[in-house]
Amino acid sequence: MGANLARNFARHGYTVAVHNRSIGRTENLLAEHGDEGNFIKTESLSELVEALERPRRVLLMIQAGSAVDAVIEDLLPLLDEDDIIIDAGNSHFADTRRREEYVASKGFHFVGIGVSGGEEGALNGPSIMPGGSEKSYESLGPLLESIAADYNGEPCCSWIGTDGAGHFVKMVHNGIEYADMQVIGETYDVLRTAAGKEPAEQAQIFRDWNDTELSSYLIEITAEVLGHQDAKTGKPLVDVIVDAAGQKGTGRWTGISGLELGSAISAIAESVFARSLSSLGDIRTEAQQKLAPALGEVPSVGEDFVEDVRLALYASKLVSYAQGLDMLQMADSEYGWELKLDEIAALWRAGCIIRAELLDTIMKEYAGANPPANLLFAPRFTEAMATAVPALRKVVGVAAAHGIPTPVFSAALAYYDGLRRDRLPAALIQGQRDFFGAHTYKRVDEPGAFHTDWSGDRREEKMD
Amino acid sequence: MGANLARNFARHGYTVAVHNRSIGRTENLLAEHGDEGNFIKTESLSELVEALERPRRVLLMIQAGSAVDAVIEDLLPLLDEDDIIIDAGNSHFADTRRREEYVASKGFHFVGIGVSGGEEGALNGPSIMPGGSEKSYESLGPLLESIAADYNGEPCCSWIGTDGAGHFVKMVHNGIEYADMQVIGETYDVLRTAAGKEPAEQAQIFRDWNDTELSSYLIEITAEVLGHQDAKTGKPLVDVIVDAAGQKGTGRWTGISGLELGSAISAIAESVFARSLSSLGDIRTEAQQKLAPALGEVPSVGEDFVEDVRLALYASKLVSYAQGLDMLQMADSEYGWELKLDEIAALWRAGCIIRAELLDTIMKEYAGANPPANLLFAPRFTEAMATAVPALRKVVGVAAAHGIPTPVFSAALAYYDGLRRDRLPAALIQGQRDFFGAHTYKRVDEPGAFHTDWSGDRREEKMD
Repeated sequence: MGANLARNFARHGYTVAVHNRSIGRTENLLAEHGDEGNFIKTESLSELVEALERPRRVLLMIQAGSAVDAVIEDLLPLLDEDDIIIDAGNSHFADTRRREEYVASKGFHFVGIGVSGGEEGALNGPSIMPGGSEKSYESLGPLLESIAADYNGEPCCSWIGTDGAGHFVKMVHNGIEYADMQVIGETYDVLRTAAGKEPAEQAQIFRDWNDTELSSYLIEITAEVLGHQDAKTGKPLVDVIVDAAGQKGTGRWTGISGLELGSAISAIAESVFARSLSSLGDIRTEAQQKLAPALGEVPSVGEDFVEDVRLALYASKLVSYAQGLDMLQMADSEYGWELKLDEIAALWRAGCIIRAELLDTIMKEYAGANPPANLLFAPRFTEAMATAVPALRKVVGVAAAHGIPTPVFSAALAYYDGLRRDRLPAALIQGQRDFFGAHTYKRVDEPGAFHTDWSGDRREEKMD
Repeated sequence: MGANLARNFARHGYTVAVHNRSIGRTENLLAEHGDEGNFIKTESLSELVEALERPRRVLLMIQAGSAVDAVIEDLLPLLDEDDIIIDAGNSHFADTRRREEYVASKGFHFVGIGVSGGEEGALNGPSIMPGGSEKSYESLGPLLESIAADYNGEPCCSWIGTDGAGHFVKMVHNGIEYADMQVIGETYDVLRTAAGKEPAEQAQIFRDWNDTELSSYLIEITAEVLGHQDAKTGKPLVDVIVDAAGQKGTGRWTGISGLELGSAISAIAESVFARSLSSLGDIRTEAQQKLAPALGEVPSVGEDFVEDVRLALYASKLVSYAQGLDMLQMADSEYGWELKLDEIAALWRAGCIIRAELLDTIMKEYAGANPPANLLFAPRFTEAMATAVPALRKVVGVAAAHGIPTPVFSAALAYYDGLRRDRLPAALIQGQRDFFGAHTYKRVDEPGAFHTDWSGDRREEKMD
């Protein structure tokens, strides 16, 4: 990713001084792509720093964690006033907050930026989510915007907020990406297991869906992957790949942050759990031998089921986005970032993995004078859910009967119904908590906290 | 809780020196319960410490967080060699690990103990989960075992493992408790909404169920809460309680730890999200006005549906326990505690909130020479799931159709199917990840990591 970002800058006319821990990497980059622009080969950090125009902009693209702290320590003695260290890796936003404070205390600037788009995005235009101070962005913004993806001429890069805001928003992007990928996986599984659609046929289905409101990069590449035949076996490639999904940690971080903030990001968390579960090698092998399918009546489905599944996917996707945006709003209150959800949606419209037509619609909904308190309250999404949720109900029922695990479809439906129900069984939970722990409860008809003397005469007492 | 623990010790013949920040609390305790045993009133920490027999055992029952650190600092100058500070509050296990190391560095002992059972358990016999060093337990064990709950004569207290092990196990207990309560709530909602069972009728259903393998404290008190009529309105109390469930944080901590460990504790996390969602006051109000029920075909259910729901509850409960125990095993590898799952199940059999007949069965399954790698692999539970899962499938389908949110029922089913399926859509996810990020994939027929050149000629390359 680092090499591709360097090439992207060079292609846009910037002179790029390059440093790698191994000089061989730098030499390879120059040998293969040196003609794309002006590169300066440097063999040490001090040489790198000396080569830069002041105020310096030193961009790190290294593995998140202690390596970032180590390089910062090495850099600090080499810097001058107003120099900026930029961390473009997938750092945890809390580390970025800490580092910004630390580097500022030494008199320099530190900017954590989230970069999404993979190798190809880094080269041809990623989606960029910069944090750090607004002042740093004055110096950095023009560079970043010039290399970012563009959506109808607008760069997919704008200042997100102070300190760790950029890395936080990138993390949530990845959490939504996890949910998007898992629910596409569930879609594929349901279509194959319940409707008998083989991968090649599904490739065409996904291609067709890419012309609907589902239009997105992940739908597009799903069609490519499902349509690809393994050269060695002649089977669909998806049948040859080991079905254990790895993770780089940002999905897990999103789940943890959601829990910390009290945001009900169930679809995102379920997608992380689904990956963990898929990687339980020996346990899964034993489970396959021991656990019965335990199917009851298995309903058959008709040809219109494909459209039900498409609607279920769309409804679940809307819920994932609603959860991700809810989490951003909660983080905003917690960290005081003043996040602009319309701008965030806007810069996810191109360059990044979750890029989708939907994000343009979301951007417009949040750009108005009365942004919705929850994504699902935007009239067009309220309407979309009213149309799609009956299909989602059907798909969840069919999957349950067929023994197809659909944790994200189910979580999305439970979120929708949990939000809209006038009464939830949380009332019973409050009763239980009052029974065993005297935690008290509130009444619907009178303010105050109440306790029933469960072990005594069961009279109710007002506690405050 | 602190006062009740003190009374419990005094009733067992121990002389208990008592200190509260406010002397009024101590005086109230002595005035109301001074005749239950030997109490010593102390007005300062130093007076408290002086009053104790050496080696001293100073038990703290204070709010988790910085207050614990503050009291430790105040205590340290007053202690002598071999004295033990005991934290019986709901501290986070990582704090307990840090405090044990710190207090040990000062030459004293620190023992974090988990205590479950609420006010009543503290007084009459809680379930106790002590961490800290094995040596500390030699001195503390007899005291703790004497005040603990007993199950058929065995004390519900035994040494869990070093440092934070006790608080960790207590945390997971609470996570399971969250899932148990939520799934009971879903059970109630399904019975009422889909089967038309009013609370009073359900009270009898839960009482009957308490004579089955579901027999447990939470089922018992659910019957009590559902059977209780509000004196003021004449309505079932559960209809008068505000349906927004609070949380004290241990459920959330369990979710976070599960994610950190990579354990697929979906049922526990969903129960935390359900509470968060229930507390979204204004958002829920707006959702009730805006979001359509979006029901399609709503199936009616027969009288045998009640038994289906019972089986669904049992299956989901088994999954919650399987997830909780899985998390304990993962933590064990991470922290080197050498947890004994049979002993942990044993001490949850009485005194604590999740106490249940089931725990005796679980204890026996793990006590054997070949404990199961997953709870569901124990033959009797494998069989129970084979019987119960068809009912769970039906209940999930009915709930989805009726618009009843059942996040834990659904998560439990997805976990079961996810474990037992021979192929998961994680293979597609790995294909997507290779497409956009060159993350590589494994093949089912050949070792190594592979990458398809998606943007080029689509040939497959072996990468290592």
